[in-house]
Amino acid sequence: MLHPEREQIALEDVLAALGQPVRLDVVRRLASGAEKFCSEVVQGVPKSTMTHHWRVLREAGVIRQRPEGRNVFVSLRRDDLDARFPGLLDIVLNDRTDG
Amino acid sequence: MLHPEREQIALEDVLAALGQPVRLDVVRRLASGAEKFCSEVVQGVPKSTMTHHWRVLREAGVIRQRPEGRNVFVSLRRDDLDARFPGLLDIVLNDRTDG
Repeated sequence: MLHPEREQIALEDVLAALGQPVRLDVVRRLASGAEKFCSEVVQGVPKSTMTHHWRVLREAGVIRQRPEGRNVFVSLRRDDLDARFPGLLDIVLNDRTDG
Repeated sequence: MLHPEREQIALEDVLAALGQPVRLDVVRRLASGAEKFCSEVVQGVPKSTMTHHWRVLREAGVIRQRPEGRNVFVSLRRDDLDARFPGLLDIVLNDRTDG
């Protein structure tokens, strides 16, 4: 399960990862910074679809996934994103024009 | 040639439009706010590919296109984007981590 290092995180990948309703919703649900089970973050989306979304978010450097036993934990890479693109995550998390 | 009204511009659409290297480059080339010919903004990208990129940017509300005679002019919808998502465009235009 590969994660880009902080300095490898690219703006275009982060924007593309966030530019999708389910993924944007996931990021907002992880906004507190707390680690959660992947399975508890989103309901009602097919497992194969979520596997794709998790990969896009992970490979863009937006989330960190951590397998433990039969579970996979997930958290937002808030520190890394704030360091790379100051203000971006705040805009995304605070925006409510679409909801 | 349809353009969303300011209040119809959705964050996820803007992020998706910006999350692609050619389109991100286009937006940066339009950063001055000046209207340009579409054909002078980007070179070396096939016309059919650019037609797609212009449409994605236009339908997301990122750019405005204006046909005049045989030319199409294009400009960044900076005021609209700044009003909708304050700070977002500044982050995108100022980031140089990927270049």
